[in-house]
Amino acid sequence: MKNFISIDDLSDFEKSVSEAIDLKNNSLKFNSLGKNKSLAMLFFNPSLRTRLSTQKAAQNLGFNTMVMNFNDEGWKLEFQNGVEMNGSSSEHVKEAASVISQYCDIIAIRAFASLNDKEADESELVINSFCKYSSVPIINMESATAHPLQALADAITIKEHKKTNRPKVVLTWAPHPKPLPHAVANSFVKMIKKINADFVISRPEGYHLNSKIEGQVNTTTDQEEALKNADFVYAKNWCSYKNYGKILKNDSSWKITSKKMNLTNNAKFMHCLPVRRNIIVSDSVIESPNSLVIQQARNRVYATQLILKKLIENE
Amino acid sequence: MKNFISIDDLSDFEKSVSEAIDLKNNSLKFNSLGKNKSLAMLFFNPSLRTRLSTQKAAQNLGFNTMVMNFNDEGWKLEFQNGVEMNGSSSEHVKEAASVISQYCDIIAIRAFASLNDKEADESELVINSFCKYSSVPIINMESATAHPLQALADAITIKEHKKTNRPKVVLTWAPHPKPLPHAVANSFVKMIKKINADFVISRPEGYHLNSKIEGQVNTTTDQEEALKNADFVYAKNWCSYKNYGKILKNDSSWKITSKKMNLTNNAKFMHCLPVRRNIIVSDSVIESPNSLVIQQARNRVYATQLILKKLIENE
Amino acid sequence: MKNFISIDDLSDFEKSVSEAIDLKNNSLKFNSLGKNKSLAMLFFNPSLRTRLSTQKAAQNLGFNTMVMNFNDEGWKLEFQNGVEMNGSSSEHVKEAASVISQYCDIIAIRAFASLNDKEADESELVINSFCKYSSVPIINMESATAHPLQALADAITIKEHKKTNRPKVVLTWAPHPKPLPHAVANSFVKMIKKINADFVISRPEGYHLNSKIEGQVNTTTDQEEALKNADFVYAKNWCSYKNYGKILKNDSSWKITSKKMNLTNNAKFMHCLPVRRNIIVSDSVIESPNSLVIQQARNRVYATQLILKKLIENE
Repeated sequence: MKNFISIDDLSDFEKSVSEAIDLKNNSLKFNSLGKNKSLAMLFFNPSLRTRLSTQKAAQNLGFNTMVMNFNDEGWKLEFQNGVEMNGSSSEHVKEAASVISQYCDIIAIRAFASLNDKEADESELVINSFCKYSSVPIINMESATAHPLQALADAITIKEHKKTNRPKVVLTWAPHPKPLPHAVANSFVKMIKKINADFVISRPEGYHLNSKIEGQVNTTTDQEEALKNADFVYAKNWCSYKNYGKILKNDSSWKITSKKMNLTNNAKFMHCLPVRRNIIVSDSVIESPNSLVIQQARNRVYATQLILKKLIENE
Repeated sequence: MKNFISIDDLSDFEKSVSEAIDLKNNSLKFNSLGKNKSLAMLFFNPSLRTRLSTQKAAQNLGFNTMVMNFNDEGWKLEFQNGVEMNGSSSEHVKEAASVISQYCDIIAIRAFASLNDKEADESELVINSFCKYSSVPIINMESATAHPLQALADAITIKEHKKTNRPKVVLTWAPHPKPLPHAVANSFVKMIKKINADFVISRPEGYHLNSKIEGQVNTTTDQEEALKNADFVYAKNWCSYKNYGKILKNDSSWKITSKKMNLTNNAKFMHCLPVRRNIIVSDSVIESPNSLVIQQARNRVYATQLILKKLIENE
Repeated sequence: MKNFISIDDLSDFEKSVSEAIDLKNNSLKFNSLGKNKSLAMLFFNPSLRTRLSTQKAAQNLGFNTMVMNFNDEGWKLEFQNGVEMNGSSSEHVKEAASVISQYCDIIAIRAFASLNDKEADESELVINSFCKYSSVPIINMESATAHPLQALADAITIKEHKKTNRPKVVLTWAPHPKPLPHAVANSFVKMIKKINADFVISRPEGYHLNSKIEGQVNTTTDQEEALKNADFVYAKNWCSYKNYGKILKNDSSWKITSKKMNLTNNAKFMHCLPVRRNIIVSDSVIESPNSLVIQQARNRVYATQLILKKLIENE
């Protein structure tokens, strides 16, 4: 594995999930793997879980970390080739990526979707530019269209909590006051295709995901129908893909409530966090014993530990 | 000690001060106590001394540290229960505190008073919410109403410099162009009550502290009378408690000058810093050999080292 | 060496360059030199290379690092003496420098020129105040008028790549849309005077540097003439010194192009970065095999490692 940009970069996914669980059970086993090595974490956007869990994962492996908030602390980057840089950008990503590569052994990057320009977002300009011009491995800490560390943590969580070999997993859209990216949903769908699950996506009219990702998945606009017999309910908001970046629906009819959870097979509730309580999900659901949101966040440490380990071992 | 929120959380205060001085004399003695452990430092407000001295204390004990400026780097937190989170807050403190607890062994938090709403400030919503929802110990790096690490450092400094068993200590209000919180004054008063001292607070009309804190303490509006025979003069501004958050007085008549210091028993001058020179105190006083402000700041390291040690040892 | 403020602080410059190259060849040789020691990095301005390369250098020597963005994270500092601090500054540099000195073993500072007030910039108020009031060594991470870590890295790079004992080195002004400080150019000129080189500065009318620095150096306003037979071409923009902080010229006639590089003796191209492509230098030059910009950035690690080592060893 050269970089970890997509969940597809893991060659044997089910084995990777097991390895991450092994790391969780013995998190300091490879405590000297990162000795005298450095992880640079570059943030173009806010972060809580990713910021702290990635540092914790690095510490567990003995890495040094350097955290940089790129927008405030550094120079505005240019990503287009061949331009006369007489505007607001002071440095080209070609130099930035080459230079940073010399100061660390792995670069982790967070760069959200703009939600203004679908084509630009799908080109993954920031993370792909770093992949192209860096000489060290790149880790995706959420890009415009993917959040593979979250998906790997979710896979760990599902494996830990599933009661049948082939659980029914529902990814359901839920309302939110702001337009949100597709990254978490995209990576979750890609991940679910790699594990043994009966999977369905429920979302309102106009809220389908990129057809390249959603294709071959069962989808429905009937949330209650989808929830029947579910073992895992993963709630997430995303903006419209068709009317890119727009909010088409915002009422509470798609909120996950206890009443809706009663339709399920005593399902576990999942969300990547941060979550808007009583908008996405009612207090009663997120605070119930069936809520896995805190465990999901914990598993971010071990997902990241596995990726750091694989990249540094060049596995 | 479960958390360190108030100076009252230390069961045997005088013994703690001695232990902190022992740590100062041998600051690397417990250098492997924090091995493979992490301290998360969360800032909702600016910080210089606290930011750096807490990191130094953690390093002396072998802890890893993760520093996060919450306002810029993370998500705006919701602290009210049961609300529909359709406003500017993206994450509830219930999730934030639970999640961060999983990435570290101790959480240290700075969250100043708003000075807009006395009741809200006195409810200590931020730090109390973290105490409630976190599964690891919490350290107060200055909350709305308390700054116990400063008070502990001040106790160390007084113990090091006192020449009599029962020194006279004066806490005197001093002018400042902006309204300031009561946190430092509150914790200083609480601390002084635990040590052997002849204590008096001098402040203008309208500048009494919370009566629960100031009660049973000698107070006067005659600063010069208070300064007579003082061994320690601790200057500090705070806003009005009665007219909460307001400045009632701002002229230089309460400034600490050399002339005023001449009324004392060759007293040591103290201030928690940052200090506005020639507003709170004249250059001649703060630069005199009797000024302890730099030593107070140094003792922040050992105060924090003691607290980290006690919390991790669950003493 | 007490502090590293200027390239002149290195007593035997050529020997220092050789020592830095030795460190590059064995970067972990002194990996325990910084054990239980701390480097505080204080930024008053943005930074990418300096921020990350200094952390890497510190890690290679086993130092702990504490990074602080002074403007956002701390208190606004007062640098004037004797003033009544009733304005926007909350803390005097006298206290800040004394206090920070107690929390670390070395302080590194970045504080750019204002470009508003030549006299103020040349007084180097920020870094000189820290030197005056700090009790630990100070490292200049680019001040108003000097960037000695860059100059040392450039000297390493020239030594590594020169093909003759006395190469011809050209420092040429190049256009830029914003007024830039003189720090890099100043330190480069000072450095070149210490090594064996045939040196010329080419810059337009009105763009001479401070005569104390530029004096005794060959200068010309004929860029093409200067480039003839050059072995190294160092491009850099700076604002007018005479009309301080102003841009007098901004057209592309001074841009470094392949055509101009053809006038040289197959010269290496150098720039400190960040660089505005196709304004300062054309893509074809910066991407050519003769471009040393990435190597220069790499050598920042070893330049800083040498300085940290000398300061901590009090050499």
